[in-house]
Amino acid sequence: MITTDPFDDDKLREECGVFGIFGNNDAAALAALGLHALQHRGQEAAGIVAFDGEQFNAHRDLGHVGDIFSSGDVMTRLGGASAIGHVRYSTTGETALRNVQPLFADLHYGGFALAHNGNLTNARLLRTDLVRSGSLFQSTMDTEVIIHLIATSRGVTLIDRMIEAVRKIEGAYSLVAITDNSVIAVRDPLGVRPLVLGKLGEAYVVASETCALDIIGADFIRDVEAGEMIVLDAEGLRSMRPFPPMKQRACIFEFIYFARPDSVMEGHSIYEARKRIGAELAIENPIDVDVVIPVPDSGVPAAIGYAAAANIPFELGIIRNHYVGRTFIEPGQQIRHLGVRLKHNANRGMIEGKRVVLVDDSIVRGTTSIKIVEMVRAAGATEVHMLIAAPPTAHSCFYGIDTPESGELLASRMNVEEMATHIGVDSLAFISMDGLYRAMREEGRNNASPQFCDACFTGDYPTQLTDHEEPVTVPQLSLLAELG
Amino acid sequence: MITTDPFDDDKLREECGVFGIFGNNDAAALAALGLHALQHRGQEAAGIVAFDGEQFNAHRDLGHVGDIFSSGDVMTRLGGASAIGHVRYSTTGETALRNVQPLFADLHYGGFALAHNGNLTNARLLRTDLVRSGSLFQSTMDTEVIIHLIATSRGVTLIDRMIEAVRKIEGAYSLVAITDNSVIAVRDPLGVRPLVLGKLGEAYVVASETCALDIIGADFIRDVEAGEMIVLDAEGLRSMRPFPPMKQRACIFEFIYFARPDSVMEGHSIYEARKRIGAELAIENPIDVDVVIPVPDSGVPAAIGYAAAANIPFELGIIRNHYVGRTFIEPGQQIRHLGVRLKHNANRGMIEGKRVVLVDDSIVRGTTSIKIVEMVRAAGATEVHMLIAAPPTAHSCFYGIDTPESGELLASRMNVEEMATHIGVDSLAFISMDGLYRAMREEGRNNASPQFCDACFTGDYPTQLTDHEEPVTVPQLSLLAELG
Amino acid sequence: MITTDPFDDDKLREECGVFGIFGNNDAAALAALGLHALQHRGQEAAGIVAFDGEQFNAHRDLGHVGDIFSSGDVMTRLGGASAIGHVRYSTTGETALRNVQPLFADLHYGGFALAHNGNLTNARLLRTDLVRSGSLFQSTMDTEVIIHLIATSRGVTLIDRMIEAVRKIEGAYSLVAITDNSVIAVRDPLGVRPLVLGKLGEAYVVASETCALDIIGADFIRDVEAGEMIVLDAEGLRSMRPFPPMKQRACIFEFIYFARPDSVMEGHSIYEARKRIGAELAIENPIDVDVVIPVPDSGVPAAIGYAAAANIPFELGIIRNHYVGRTFIEPGQQIRHLGVRLKHNANRGMIEGKRVVLVDDSIVRGTTSIKIVEMVRAAGATEVHMLIAAPPTAHSCFYGIDTPESGELLASRMNVEEMATHIGVDSLAFISMDGLYRAMREEGRNNASPQFCDACFTGDYPTQLTDHEEPVTVPQLSLLAELG
Amino acid sequence: MITTDPFDDDKLREECGVFGIFGNNDAAALAALGLHALQHRGQEAAGIVAFDGEQFNAHRDLGHVGDIFSSGDVMTRLGGASAIGHVRYSTTGETALRNVQPLFADLHYGGFALAHNGNLTNARLLRTDLVRSGSLFQSTMDTEVIIHLIATSRGVTLIDRMIEAVRKIEGAYSLVAITDNSVIAVRDPLGVRPLVLGKLGEAYVVASETCALDIIGADFIRDVEAGEMIVLDAEGLRSMRPFPPMKQRACIFEFIYFARPDSVMEGHSIYEARKRIGAELAIENPIDVDVVIPVPDSGVPAAIGYAAAANIPFELGIIRNHYVGRTFIEPGQQIRHLGVRLKHNANRGMIEGKRVVLVDDSIVRGTTSIKIVEMVRAAGATEVHMLIAAPPTAHSCFYGIDTPESGELLASRMNVEEMATHIGVDSLAFISMDGLYRAMREEGRNNASPQFCDACFTGDYPTQLTDHEEPVTVPQLSLLAELG
Repeated sequence: MITTDPFDDDKLREECGVFGIFGNNDAAALAALGLHALQHRGQEAAGIVAFDGEQFNAHRDLGHVGDIFSSGDVMTRLGGASAIGHVRYSTTGETALRNVQPLFADLHYGGFALAHNGNLTNARLLRTDLVRSGSLFQSTMDTEVIIHLIATSRGVTLIDRMIEAVRKIEGAYSLVAITDNSVIAVRDPLGVRPLVLGKLGEAYVVASETCALDIIGADFIRDVEAGEMIVLDAEGLRSMRPFPPMKQRACIFEFIYFARPDSVMEGHSIYEARKRIGAELAIENPIDVDVVIPVPDSGVPAAIGYAAAANIPFELGIIRNHYVGRTFIEPGQQIRHLGVRLKHNANRGMIEGKRVVLVDDSIVRGTTSIKIVEMVRAAGATEVHMLIAAPPTAHSCFYGIDTPESGELLASRMNVEEMATHIGVDSLAFISMDGLYRAMREEGRNNASPQFCDACFTGDYPTQLTDHEEPVTVPQLSLLAELG
Repeated sequence: MITTDPFDDDKLREECGVFGIFGNNDAAALAALGLHALQHRGQEAAGIVAFDGEQFNAHRDLGHVGDIFSSGDVMTRLGGASAIGHVRYSTTGETALRNVQPLFADLHYGGFALAHNGNLTNARLLRTDLVRSGSLFQSTMDTEVIIHLIATSRGVTLIDRMIEAVRKIEGAYSLVAITDNSVIAVRDPLGVRPLVLGKLGEAYVVASETCALDIIGADFIRDVEAGEMIVLDAEGLRSMRPFPPMKQRACIFEFIYFARPDSVMEGHSIYEARKRIGAELAIENPIDVDVVIPVPDSGVPAAIGYAAAANIPFELGIIRNHYVGRTFIEPGQQIRHLGVRLKHNANRGMIEGKRVVLVDDSIVRGTTSIKIVEMVRAAGATEVHMLIAAPPTAHSCFYGIDTPESGELLASRMNVEEMATHIGVDSLAFISMDGLYRAMREEGRNNASPQFCDACFTGDYPTQLTDHEEPVTVPQLSLLAELG
Repeated sequence: MITTDPFDDDKLREECGVFGIFGNNDAAALAALGLHALQHRGQEAAGIVAFDGEQFNAHRDLGHVGDIFSSGDVMTRLGGASAIGHVRYSTTGETALRNVQPLFADLHYGGFALAHNGNLTNARLLRTDLVRSGSLFQSTMDTEVIIHLIATSRGVTLIDRMIEAVRKIEGAYSLVAITDNSVIAVRDPLGVRPLVLGKLGEAYVVASETCALDIIGADFIRDVEAGEMIVLDAEGLRSMRPFPPMKQRACIFEFIYFARPDSVMEGHSIYEARKRIGAELAIENPIDVDVVIPVPDSGVPAAIGYAAAANIPFELGIIRNHYVGRTFIEPGQQIRHLGVRLKHNANRGMIEGKRVVLVDDSIVRGTTSIKIVEMVRAAGATEVHMLIAAPPTAHSCFYGIDTPESGELLASRMNVEEMATHIGVDSLAFISMDGLYRAMREEGRNNASPQFCDACFTGDYPTQLTDHEEPVTVPQLSLLAELG
Repeated sequence: MITTDPFDDDKLREECGVFGIFGNNDAAALAALGLHALQHRGQEAAGIVAFDGEQFNAHRDLGHVGDIFSSGDVMTRLGGASAIGHVRYSTTGETALRNVQPLFADLHYGGFALAHNGNLTNARLLRTDLVRSGSLFQSTMDTEVIIHLIATSRGVTLIDRMIEAVRKIEGAYSLVAITDNSVIAVRDPLGVRPLVLGKLGEAYVVASETCALDIIGADFIRDVEAGEMIVLDAEGLRSMRPFPPMKQRACIFEFIYFARPDSVMEGHSIYEARKRIGAELAIENPIDVDVVIPVPDSGVPAAIGYAAAANIPFELGIIRNHYVGRTFIEPGQQIRHLGVRLKHNANRGMIEGKRVVLVDDSIVRGTTSIKIVEMVRAAGATEVHMLIAAPPTAHSCFYGIDTPESGELLASRMNVEEMATHIGVDSLAFISMDGLYRAMREEGRNNASPQFCDACFTGDYPTQLTDHEEPVTVPQLSLLAELG
């Protein structure tokens, strides 16, 4: 099978988005809208758990938010004034329904559900300990580790138990949880993954990005802070600090690619940050060309920034087909070689006879770049240059981003010159690390204490990688392969 | 909605059947055949877990066995030489897929799956304790209580842990379990629910009834004994006795109605036992009629026994439509009064102008009997007598049989004479308790120490009914209503 | 795949049943009930077309009647006081939805729908002529030939057109049609396939069998006569005679096997006719045995008749599993040889050590009989005799019954003695042709002018077989294979 | 229900796209790719009919091309070297599967399938005549009218018959047909709807747009000419002229909105034509603003053209959510008023405090424009001007475009000033008719003999509107509402 998303397979992928609301009688409907706005953070599954005053109701399914929550009957049953939701991107084999969040549990004190954006770096170790003590797992999700930690905690209140649990976990996480009288949000001590706070009338809202506040007409209040726990209940909002204070290191790739351009994160408009990256690219890499062409859609803001700064015309030289599904026909050998273009097509009139600079957000495996360049040359470009709005991506992410094995990352195997030859461009340039930090309005990277998590470029991981570094030798757990 | 099983709704229902096999390379396929033969014990869902030497594979779904296991791909993936299976009848609201057995768990020492026929009478109490200690439940099944007891046991071996677990549970149960090197079967100390042992070549088989041995060509060895635990592994068969010895009290209703007529149970051919009940009825209730008509299909053997003993012609005076689903059209008010006959039709030629005795296995609510009698009278019977192959059913069952609230049982509200009037027959008689025991080749009921569990007739329950008698006042557990 | 109906594959199959009603506001609901009662005549697809006073509404689907018409929404939309319906059995490859009846057409004068039980013997010739004139076919059904004949007729009224159409067709057919002001029924000039007339209050009903009248509480009036056309409309019932009068030759196999035992056809109770066949068998074939065992379910009435006449005990020595779907697991080579018994099981206690006579309705390929005999011997029978309630089936049917190629019919390849050896019985006997006619209360077969169609036994076909005898050499029509 | 395409409901919609190929062994796979590229012309259903040398095979379904043709099995069965395909947009109620094209028929000389982009203006009259003569229709599609005309034609060859048929039809149509030895394409005498010819190796291809050639790597040869019939068969390509020559009048709205920006049509790059419209708008409407913002996605090329000509920055001030399905949650009254933004979100940083010009392709009902303007003002724009790349749309289209009733068209009820007030902008301007023709490189509209069909702006329809102008008084045809 070839997919209609061949180029997306050559992107890093955010794996999740979360949403929570307390205090509005349309809680689940608002959650569905919020998840729709966060769909780019996880397009394969979604779920909502709402509390209607008497019981918890859940709806979780594979597919797009708009399809999953389209039934009036489902929305009616998801009644109540508090709800949390989750969207998920999953790699093959883990798409099983039982891995869809939020995850629910009947705790001793009542129902509890949890959703999670990020990744724990000591989940395997914790899981092994829990199973040894008799905990039974029904999924392979980190989220379930946290729930078992809460269930087996000896804390007196649920808040005590959650604090005890999050102190045991390592990694990057933005959590939202729901109980029968509250919605709780926690952001990890480094604030790697985003989480914002908003208000809609009297109701408080938490979400991965501000675009989820915009869609429901909520006002943006502030980012949830690194290491902050927020409890929303009938008495309003309480902020707690379960961890010793640490300097924040938000994921810089959110600004380059993951977040939606209309979101605002840590004080930056994503769209403007990307335009500034384009402008920095223009300063660092002045090139004499006729036209600036973005690789759609993610390269557009940087290309606009570059075109404006370099005073070169911006044109849509590549047209994207938005009718995309997950699979497509298996082409015969003959067709495969014809240069199938399921997702992009060259806009020949804007390319033929011209010197072109292509602007893309990043290079992962480079497979897409090769095809794009080939297509642009076939359409008659006389020169093809490529500028990348990120530094070379050479290291895996352990914080909730789907990254190929590091050996598959082009930048881990080649230097820039080799990559240029491999991709087939006349020149190739990446934004410099300091250029990127300047676009983020820093003076440059503070190497002693970096302002962001940029581990995918630098290999400088801000947390321990327990599971990765110290492979635990426990009895291999059997895996249930539920068929059908 | 009226269902195509209107009369079945007026029967008690066996809730489950189990099957296990160790040592045949077609284990899952044989399990599917065995479950097909046990389908009458649970027709709403089925599941198989097989171990292929490396991992456990499961397939569980709602529907009939023949449909669930019809895919070649599914059967190929259910490879290996050991497997257990389960069929289930469920009341509305509990049909959710997550309640389908066998239930699987990743224990510390490896995978484990369990299936269960019967009902625990202290499950709620045990569950409350387990949740208080941090166990998380994913279903509402008693089976999961047993698995958590095993997971949290401090026993050294899995067998130790299972023994510890079954010693804590009360009620009626026939269990089959699978591990990565064995299949294990346990029958409760009173042997209420059936479980038989068979052999197919070198492989051992356990199943709820012998008809599941017949379908795969296995030889019947013996009943698993009350209170016996059997471990089937590479070294063959081991029998253990986790409980102090008790006198068996098998469910007598299995012989009257639940079991298949071609099964053999505790030394009795079910078909012949039913014929003997019919013969006892003839001795106890000689009636001068022209024809003996069974209420199909369950009344047939007793009717044949009655007809032979009374020397009256046996005729199929009521024809049953075997094309039955679960739901049917909602008839308008007009139609409802026409006397809709979705499942039975009178065979007028056998009835018109005749004195008729109808033989049925039992009366539960009596709603079916009223309609049958009305239909037989409308077809021209001059007299209608009814004989029942069971004593009056006046008490609920707590041992794995779906019984209406006792207030809905006709025999709990009326004496026999009132029932006759209510149903509209010229005469009505039930087999006597001693008659029933005589048909089972006892001299009569030993009231000091009854030979069978006959609680549904006598209210004499052979175990404690902890959950029922001592309602535990624990915090109400929230229920997750998974929608869609 | 082996099916759960292995034995049914060794039966002839009725291919269709029809139902029509005019003048009751629950017309479609009554039609659904009627089709449910006729389900044995076609269990793979069903359809209803109703006229609500303004437009025609249809619902047609593959599956069982009870499932197809279970939606309240569907039934509400099938409003109106007139409706026709159809059940269909289809051979593989023809199960496509577009072949499900009733078939609807927008004629010049308004909507029209038609359903059909039987088979035309000149359909191919007529179809070729129609296509040559520009008619476009959307299905491969004979029914559509009739509709095109009506559409292209030059008759003035619809009745004229229908008469013109039916005069052109040959074969066996019971038709029901619906227009915007009537329901019309036609039976072919020989009355091969059954059709009965009933009344429910003021509404008239036509149906393939009386059991469809019973289920809705309608009174049976009479059989529709051979060659009769009945028009039901606001003015009541009109009977017409489009054909020259011919002596009726109803299908005798309806009495042996196709019809339901509780139906009455051409003045005979089906159940009693079958018992009389059993009694004739006892006269023709007295055998000294211990027990009479029917091959369930179709052999039961003849076995009861035999047992009573021969004064030998009747016992259910073979138990049938009613949980049957269409497919089942593909057994490995090993299992296949174990003697898999998906549908029947021997009731050992009734067989072991006994001399047995098995009574079955017919032998088609004989594959089932071999397995049954093997199973009965394995259960310990000391002698196995087999009696068949039909003469040897040696010829194909061209009148709406699914018959194997004649070469596959056991009786076309072997004489009775060879068949007995092949099947493995100690003796085998079929009812004689005159015995069969006597059971039908004739003095014997009138060979000059037979009272029934018995072509499957005699090869004496009562109509021309145009398509069969004179293969038309027209350009091969292309077939559209609609996938998915 | 509110849809995720609320704004699309405020666009005119192209109703179909067609594709045909002869002479490549991957014909159906190439057709699927071509249809994928044409998906914007019809996103609700698709179908392919291929001829494999022996028979025709079809696969047609509701949904997106990528999903419909994703099965390897389906593609394998769609073998052969010739195929035609179709994508369809359908209004509610007509989405039934039976209306999905290509439509297939068994003609006297063999199989034949036809697909069609456009609309006949005398279909109802022709249909009435055909039904009167005995033709039976299975769909409500114009396509079927053409097939019946062919079937009932007295022409000797199929080509003769097709010519006879197309001479009887009026309206706009681009047809592709397949027979057992050819693929045939016809464009109506005025060439209203597009159709292009390409070549892939030895195979010829016809398609609605050149983007369908690009995706399979085929070379674009030329537009099929107005009134041209092209026959592709083993002897290559033949061009015929069934009609008297007429001056072409291609649909001008294809250039404004319907066609993909990367297609080339009648010698014009669509993208460049749209940029030229933007430039004409800048000449006709110089406005002093800070930023040019397109209404995405269709307004983008004109906005780029405007921004470049006016030398004002182009920014993505409105972000579109591409995760869109057809339905979404039903919001409660409260939510509905919050300003739900399922598809667009303002990019506040680009808008706040700025004077904005919005560029959109057209205004249909105006409902979207109101919401967009409201959203842009809420994001802080100080002035909002709107420029439209089309003249006011005041007339319905009868040539294959889904248009609202003319009374619903804003421009049919208001003048430009009233529209500006209604929409809430500071100023509103449409491109002038001559400006539009200049952007198409004409000197202006030739009112005596217009170069394009612009009836939606002018009401100047280039063909008779027989069905519309002379309502035929025939008996009302009954409609079959197939349920389910």
